[in-house]
Amino acid sequence: MNKIRVTIWHEFFHEHTNDDVAALYPDGMHECLAAALQADDLEIRTAWLMQDDDHGLSDDVLNSTDVMLWWGHALHDKVRDDIAEKVVQRVLDGMGFIALHSAHMAKPFCKLMGQPCKLRWRCANEKAIVWNVHPTHPITQGVPLHFELEREEMYGEVFQIPQPDDLLFITWFAGGNVFRGGSTFTRGLGKIFYFHPGHEDCPSFHNENVIKIIANGVRWAAPVTLVDLEGNKSQKMLVGDDT
Amino acid sequence: MNKIRVTIWHEFFHEHTNDDVAALYPDGMHECLAAALQADDLEIRTAWLMQDDDHGLSDDVLNSTDVMLWWGHALHDKVRDDIAEKVVQRVLDGMGFIALHSAHMAKPFCKLMGQPCKLRWRCANEKAIVWNVHPTHPITQGVPLHFELEREEMYGEVFQIPQPDDLLFITWFAGGNVFRGGSTFTRGLGKIFYFHPGHEDCPSFHNENVIKIIANGVRWAAPVTLVDLEGNKSQKMLVGDDT
Amino acid sequence: MNKIRVTIWHEFFHEHTNDDVAALYPDGMHECLAAALQADDLEIRTAWLMQDDDHGLSDDVLNSTDVMLWWGHALHDKVRDDIAEKVVQRVLDGMGFIALHSAHMAKPFCKLMGQPCKLRWRCANEKAIVWNVHPTHPITQGVPLHFELEREEMYGEVFQIPQPDDLLFITWFAGGNVFRGGSTFTRGLGKIFYFHPGHEDCPSFHNENVIKIIANGVRWAAPVTLVDLEGNKSQKMLVGDDT
Amino acid sequence: MNKIRVTIWHEFFHEHTNDDVAALYPDGMHECLAAALQADDLEIRTAWLMQDDDHGLSDDVLNSTDVMLWWGHALHDKVRDDIAEKVVQRVLDGMGFIALHSAHMAKPFCKLMGQPCKLRWRCANEKAIVWNVHPTHPITQGVPLHFELEREEMYGEVFQIPQPDDLLFITWFAGGNVFRGGSTFTRGLGKIFYFHPGHEDCPSFHNENVIKIIANGVRWAAPVTLVDLEGNKSQKMLVGDDT
Repeated sequence: MNKIRVTIWHEFFHEHTNDDVAALYPDGMHECLAAALQADDLEIRTAWLMQDDDHGLSDDVLNSTDVMLWWGHALHDKVRDDIAEKVVQRVLDGMGFIALHSAHMAKPFCKLMGQPCKLRWRCANEKAIVWNVHPTHPITQGVPLHFELEREEMYGEVFQIPQPDDLLFITWFAGGNVFRGGSTFTRGLGKIFYFHPGHEDCPSFHNENVIKIIANGVRWAAPVTLVDLEGNKSQKMLVGDDT
Repeated sequence: MNKIRVTIWHEFFHEHTNDDVAALYPDGMHECLAAALQADDLEIRTAWLMQDDDHGLSDDVLNSTDVMLWWGHALHDKVRDDIAEKVVQRVLDGMGFIALHSAHMAKPFCKLMGQPCKLRWRCANEKAIVWNVHPTHPITQGVPLHFELEREEMYGEVFQIPQPDDLLFITWFAGGNVFRGGSTFTRGLGKIFYFHPGHEDCPSFHNENVIKIIANGVRWAAPVTLVDLEGNKSQKMLVGDDT
Repeated sequence: MNKIRVTIWHEFFHEHTNDDVAALYPDGMHECLAAALQADDLEIRTAWLMQDDDHGLSDDVLNSTDVMLWWGHALHDKVRDDIAEKVVQRVLDGMGFIALHSAHMAKPFCKLMGQPCKLRWRCANEKAIVWNVHPTHPITQGVPLHFELEREEMYGEVFQIPQPDDLLFITWFAGGNVFRGGSTFTRGLGKIFYFHPGHEDCPSFHNENVIKIIANGVRWAAPVTLVDLEGNKSQKMLVGDDT
Repeated sequence: MNKIRVTIWHEFFHEHTNDDVAALYPDGMHECLAAALQADDLEIRTAWLMQDDDHGLSDDVLNSTDVMLWWGHALHDKVRDDIAEKVVQRVLDGMGFIALHSAHMAKPFCKLMGQPCKLRWRCANEKAIVWNVHPTHPITQGVPLHFELEREEMYGEVFQIPQPDDLLFITWFAGGNVFRGGSTFTRGLGKIFYFHPGHEDCPSFHNENVIKIIANGVRWAAPVTLVDLEGNKSQKMLVGDDT
């Protein structure tokens, strides 16, 4: 079986400007995730905003990525529009996309959702409890029906997203908020999973349940292969003129 | 315009056995709801478990009800199976059904859902906050995007329900739980709305937002009228043999 | 009650270049629709691509539109990006949007969907039958559970759209195709309805069932009004910093 | 890896009373399906209505079944209520359930759906075309985006089912009908797939695409395993009193 080729894209900014973040993620969040997700069926690489002129996302990298993880927060605006558009196009052609934490406002995610995905937020790093509301979904397997994050940034309703295909997790925050914090979408042939934990100065990417869920998401989001009427494989929808 | 004929069905048990409940709802929860929902476009009556041999739900009452509200808790088992089945049949034929609080385990609701609708619960009458996650739905109009219930019984996930047609409200509980506390379903031609507030020793049916939401639910759940190819009105689906 | 302010936007091209179209719609499809939708609760105006430098969609027009209908086909590219973006923004702020026929590829619709909405098509003007699969939805009221279009352009699956909020109609085409031809979406506060009939050289906008469905769509898509915790009305989501 | 234990339940009636059916399925439809689904990861057995007093569905058989296929048509009434109820209970506890063809009116399926699932039908054995409208779903993998059944019984809209979790296939019938012929549901922990081909005097269970889809359905419907907070495996939801 071919390995799933995963690219973890990271803004990689706060680690350079905030000692707390650097202490939690000394090699960057992307390297933390890469190590935690390591597995025989995955081929993992990382890319980041300032890696090169293309944010590490050359056509070669994009075209050889099956599933992309995206973490961005403070520098959404610095992502080039043409690169964001290429990422969107790859998703429509079948690349999986896992939007982590503040990626709800990242260019590729908002373009795919058809709207800015605003929400209520509070940076109090309060206690959070993640509740599984879809116990039969592939992404929720192997984790308890609820688990605690000792502290996370509050992201809360109203979360301005289109109706998800499936709502997987609802997160409780100590300050009085709830959040549809794990949900899936489809755009074109691409499967998309949004999952909220991962504020830069919180240890969520060291949490084994968070990692298990992201790992499940990667495998769930791997591209499908279409077959045509003659049984030939194709990665493109067979649509258009049918005269 | 014809009025919507509403029947509020109530177990009407706790008011007789618990002084706190009787103090909150001296005439019974059903009469409290009837008074609060009073409006020019509604024709409201009440019925209750021990009203008569048919639980107040004779064929005449059932056949002249457009929308039924159902509150039951301790005595689900005392509802006759044949009456429950008649209620289900009326829903399939288009009667709206509003399941309140513990009606998640009422016979008609469980039959319509296709499963017992178990949940996690805790009778601590803790603070709850109801969050609107579907601001464009008719049932959520005219109420703030969130509002507080000073105390309610905790009902929490995992709530064993089929995927709702629309998820309207998610409730936060002080003790650490979340709950898909307002959601809609369709069975046959009947529109169904489940809404969780209303524990017997809590004042939720005196809360104006709760009442507004139930009132919205009644109007949303009013029966539709089908027309056939000749434009004649019909309350039955036109299905069956088409040879 | 305030009237719903409707703007019917039309490409208005084929009427000038094709005699058959001009014969079917001598004043343009927009005027045909305007006349057919005429009703006491609606305030209807029309706008078109070449009406003025802003395609008839000045800020004044946009800001005073509650529901916009959009018909475009051959000249999607001629719509200015900034105007399309303004339409999208108005939808996110609550304006209803009814995408007719080839508007599945119109700039505002694709931006709102997050993807180009390709489909299979065949311009054979073959017999079509529209089947209602959601008899309780407001948009399907007052029309038979199926009705025939003597000829329409075939639009067929796979239709590349996000999962609709509600699937209302599936259309059968004589040539062997099916199409999810009527479906709803929400983006921001805006309600969106896509409906496929209306090829330029077909008489679908003279069909009373098509008109009834579009009229239902207009009333369904009318903007909602939010209220804040103090009961004040607001047209904006109350989101953002909650520290 | 443990094999998926599959039980194919069949009414097994028409083969005894209709020569055409016996010619198409000399050993019965159940044995045809068992042979066609044969694979290393599946452990397949069959059961039928008159096999023994329990319709072949003893507690031992039920408790050792991971996924059940169900074909019934003329003798739904002959299935004992208590057996149907046991099947339902097993689904709620996680057993997958694949409802084939006329099983839309089978006792276990109707109980799980919460309603009789009536539809329009015509026994003309006309040409049908199955269209895939969900190309990224596990059940639709490896089959073309559309394929033909040379003849099938027409099942058509309005199909009285709850909103499916996912709509996978829409079937076109030569006589002018469409049908949501492949769709999924969840009840309790059980995954349910309805798929329409398989009229007794049609060769659909000899069609490789139909078999591929059913095989995909079996693997998709295999039970999930929950884990509790201590990581212990459990097949039961962890709900109830949380005081």
